[in-house]
Amino acid sequence: MRHARYLPVLDWGRGYNRTILTNDLVAAAIVTIMLIPQSLAYAMLAGLPPEIGLYASILPIIAYALFGTSRTLAVGPVAVISLMTLTAASSVAAPGTAQFIAATLVLAFLSGVMLILMGVLRLGFLANLLSHPVVSGFITASGLIIATSQLKSILGVSASGKAMPELVSTLLANLASVNLPTLIIGVTSTAFLFWVRKGLKPLLVRLGLKARTADLTAKAGPIAAVAISTLAVVLLDLEAQGVRVVGQIPHSLPPFTVPLFDAELWQRLAIPALLLSVIGFVESVSVAQTLAAKKRQRINPDQELIGLGAANVAASFSGGYPVTGGFARSVVNFDAGAETPVAGAYTAVGIAIAALFLTPYLASLPIATLAATIIVAVLSLVDLQTPQHIWRYSKPDFAAMAATVLVTLLAGVEPGVIAGVGLSLALYLWRASRPHAAIVGRVPETEHFRNVKRHDVLTDPRILTIRIDESLTYLNARWLEEFVLEQVAEHSQLRHLILMCSAVNAIDASALESIEAINHRLADADASLHLSEVKGPVMDALERSHLLHNLTGKVWLSQNDAFSQIMEMMIRSDSPELHMDVYGPRGLI
Amino acid sequence: MRHARYLPVLDWGRGYNRTILTNDLVAAAIVTIMLIPQSLAYAMLAGLPPEIGLYASILPIIAYALFGTSRTLAVGPVAVISLMTLTAASSVAAPGTAQFIAATLVLAFLSGVMLILMGVLRLGFLANLLSHPVVSGFITASGLIIATSQLKSILGVSASGKAMPELVSTLLANLASVNLPTLIIGVTSTAFLFWVRKGLKPLLVRLGLKARTADLTAKAGPIAAVAISTLAVVLLDLEAQGVRVVGQIPHSLPPFTVPLFDAELWQRLAIPALLLSVIGFVESVSVAQTLAAKKRQRINPDQELIGLGAANVAASFSGGYPVTGGFARSVVNFDAGAETPVAGAYTAVGIAIAALFLTPYLASLPIATLAATIIVAVLSLVDLQTPQHIWRYSKPDFAAMAATVLVTLLAGVEPGVIAGVGLSLALYLWRASRPHAAIVGRVPETEHFRNVKRHDVLTDPRILTIRIDESLTYLNARWLEEFVLEQVAEHSQLRHLILMCSAVNAIDASALESIEAINHRLADADASLHLSEVKGPVMDALERSHLLHNLTGKVWLSQNDAFSQIMEMMIRSDSPELHMDVYGPRGLI
Repeated sequence: MRHARYLPVLDWGRGYNRTILTNDLVAAAIVTIMLIPQSLAYAMLAGLPPEIGLYASILPIIAYALFGTSRTLAVGPVAVISLMTLTAASSVAAPGTAQFIAATLVLAFLSGVMLILMGVLRLGFLANLLSHPVVSGFITASGLIIATSQLKSILGVSASGKAMPELVSTLLANLASVNLPTLIIGVTSTAFLFWVRKGLKPLLVRLGLKARTADLTAKAGPIAAVAISTLAVVLLDLEAQGVRVVGQIPHSLPPFTVPLFDAELWQRLAIPALLLSVIGFVESVSVAQTLAAKKRQRINPDQELIGLGAANVAASFSGGYPVTGGFARSVVNFDAGAETPVAGAYTAVGIAIAALFLTPYLASLPIATLAATIIVAVLSLVDLQTPQHIWRYSKPDFAAMAATVLVTLLAGVEPGVIAGVGLSLALYLWRASRPHAAIVGRVPETEHFRNVKRHDVLTDPRILTIRIDESLTYLNARWLEEFVLEQVAEHSQLRHLILMCSAVNAIDASALESIEAINHRLADADASLHLSEVKGPVMDALERSHLLHNLTGKVWLSQNDAFSQIMEMMIRSDSPELHMDVYGPRGLI
Repeated sequence: MRHARYLPVLDWGRGYNRTILTNDLVAAAIVTIMLIPQSLAYAMLAGLPPEIGLYASILPIIAYALFGTSRTLAVGPVAVISLMTLTAASSVAAPGTAQFIAATLVLAFLSGVMLILMGVLRLGFLANLLSHPVVSGFITASGLIIATSQLKSILGVSASGKAMPELVSTLLANLASVNLPTLIIGVTSTAFLFWVRKGLKPLLVRLGLKARTADLTAKAGPIAAVAISTLAVVLLDLEAQGVRVVGQIPHSLPPFTVPLFDAELWQRLAIPALLLSVIGFVESVSVAQTLAAKKRQRINPDQELIGLGAANVAASFSGGYPVTGGFARSVVNFDAGAETPVAGAYTAVGIAIAALFLTPYLASLPIATLAATIIVAVLSLVDLQTPQHIWRYSKPDFAAMAATVLVTLLAGVEPGVIAGVGLSLALYLWRASRPHAAIVGRVPETEHFRNVKRHDVLTDPRILTIRIDESLTYLNARWLEEFVLEQVAEHSQLRHLILMCSAVNAIDASALESIEAINHRLADADASLHLSEVKGPVMDALERSHLLHNLTGKVWLSQNDAFSQIMEMMIRSDSPELHMDVYGPRGLI
């Protein structure tokens, strides 16, 4: 069934019943518990007060539920987008200032508007420019930067920087001022969370829980770390010993905010907002597609742009910051049995309740525990397998990935994405500009024509056949001219050149111009140009051009006809000229 | 014979003899006569003193003769590059100022260095980004802007602007102050030059000259216009009546100049210099290729970059401004019988003599005559045929051309080029991101598989075959996933999906990832993925990946094998599962 364009809720809303309600409620409860510490942590990663993470997990979820097409995608703050927000906003204001918060609202708003526009104009294909190796390299490098940046909170020292060199050097410079209680909390939290990830589920299974229940219970591990470390701070009065804590958080629903309408600020944030939107979209769509496919459902990428755009606009008007579909929480939502986007709405209610009533208890939560949450989450983003596979499979793809990783680590997230996209595109265009082509000859006693370099074939010094294994476009039109004229210059007896077009799916205006130029230049050199095995749609287009009229040779249905009839003609007429009155350029078409 | 890399003179220099010498000398004399008024005129078009046009026609020619690969290309100031120079330099200084002249030297230097770098790094393929429709539209629009800008000198009024709206409005605003003697000189010169172009050659032929002699004599027409209008100014004392003249020109050889090394100026001129380099290169290479092909000679585009780069560096050190290979002068050079680049060197000597001894006689040359020379030259650039052909042949190509023309006319040359390149690339990527694919079935009683939408074919609801008519790359990897999963969602009985790869010339890492994702998602939905008719090089690459190991179905040599054996298996085993132990993923490869 096709869903209603622009408002998918009209599609799945009709079938909503009590069973689905129960499933959605259970999933929402589990995701809410998981989201609370994560939202606080990611907001602090983005250089924002922790409550903003909660605000960004309320209205955006509802906006996505209304406009998005995935039934189980969970939208909210995520690690990489938080890092990109920090980088972008700190280029216009210092983290912690009111201007910084204003900049993150503008980022969310611009990003939302861009995503909606891309969706309405069906420009989702622009996300294709982010190749898989580039995205993979970018996520890995971002994960490393985020983990390194959180080490400061684990150690209780200060450090700053958008990329590795500055981060590492400030971290090392301040290493002497490490705070021991903070270090203990940080290291035990990290160890505990890693154990929760790997060891808790098997333990629970051994204790008799079902695999699925054990899995979902283990997801609540971070809440235990939060509770225990907060208790430790309160009971041992660790704040007095220099352990930094979250501090007083206002307990309220999300405030109504309006993004600043400041032309200069918009201009400075436009490119970062675009990069952030596209990265967020690519990540989110891949999660949504994976989950939808498991139930043979579909998502609509153009509508996903609108859903994510709406979520970001909602964030900008409710005191949030840029959001997207998160991998971990969506998988939990799916595994917990969420069936419709209403589960997201229940999660939003859960987080709203937390924002209203739970925040006073978070004042003594140590920042080191949140840092541990982030480190454990982002280290799972670091992927050391994919680079090896890509290295083995394709060197150009590996080059694009390596450039993305290096530039991201050394110069930051924005230059990293731009370098990756630029290099991928340059490599693609370079390859497209010099397609594979072969000089072919006839395999003896057959009608097949094969590459002269690989097979023993029949050729004639007066006839040259070039097979081109690619569509002819402006990217390779100049190559075509050069390649063909080079061959002509090397074959001094040439009278007939045949372009074998069996693999040519299209010929654009530039390539047509090049073929016409080749035709004229061959005429200047007293040789004729022929085409063979031209595909139907290509021939239809050529009929609308002047090429067929001016062609010195003709268009042949098959390469074998072309070769044998030209040979025969040269022998019979004892003249190198093709008799144009008999074999007119379109005679056999 | 292959020429020596980097110094082609070593190639043709050995065979130089007396006959070639005579031919080269005759050609040089004719080109010199044609170049003198043109060089003065183009320099003034670029907002520079006229003598700079002469300087730009001396050393650059010699530098190109040493490093270029075309034997007959004539390098020097040309109309479009002069307009681009005016636009670029006037963004940093007012025309006529010393800073402006300094900026044009920097432009020539930067452009030269960029061209040489592109040549050494073999980046000539970047020029491919300028499609034929974009270049054609750009040249036409530039011709219109240049012709309009010269109307001011014909009318004897002032006007300024980089694009049409400003040019036309300033021209109309000053129309009242038209100078009658200037108008008479301008209009008669223009009419005379048009007649020289169309009517002089037939007249000379009727008077008994040979066609070729008549043709070459007609090329000297502009010199007659220069001489007659200068005489008229002197004899009738028209200067007193407000006719603007060239004025005193220093009579000297080119001065030695050094381009300013100013980081900020370089930064501001870098993009204009790049655009100017690429446009100049594209124009020059197409002229050089046309002429070389007529004699079955070859040019080497990467070496051409170095030749043109050397010419521009030479211009920057000898008081010139950006140059490139000119169409009109190169054709004259070729037609006049030039055989080697030495003809260019003789031309340089001719222009040097003119710069030394002829300049005093040019003081009273009316600017209106030079404007007439430019108008007649550039109106031949305006091409109204090509847009019609392109409209008929390809609408996307027409859109790119129309955008280039409109943006160039309305906003100027730099935005015009950028818009054209951007739109061409966007359209290309858009098309590459959604290739042609067809669901195919077996034509009854054959082994052929055809599109189900066009032919009556056999299919089975449990088996779906998709033929993809394009290489699989990161640009269409996401499309592939969406397209295939959409088909899966629509075929609820599907057990086996076959991707028919007969037209797939390559699969990059992103597309491989998508195929792996499709494989996993089909497995989640209890269906198998098969590949058929995979080409040799693609299979070689796939052998290095994990895909073949994880593939739920198998790779089949032919589509017919795939279809019939899967059918047979389903019937025989009475089970929808493929027995993987018998038909292992690489069993038949």
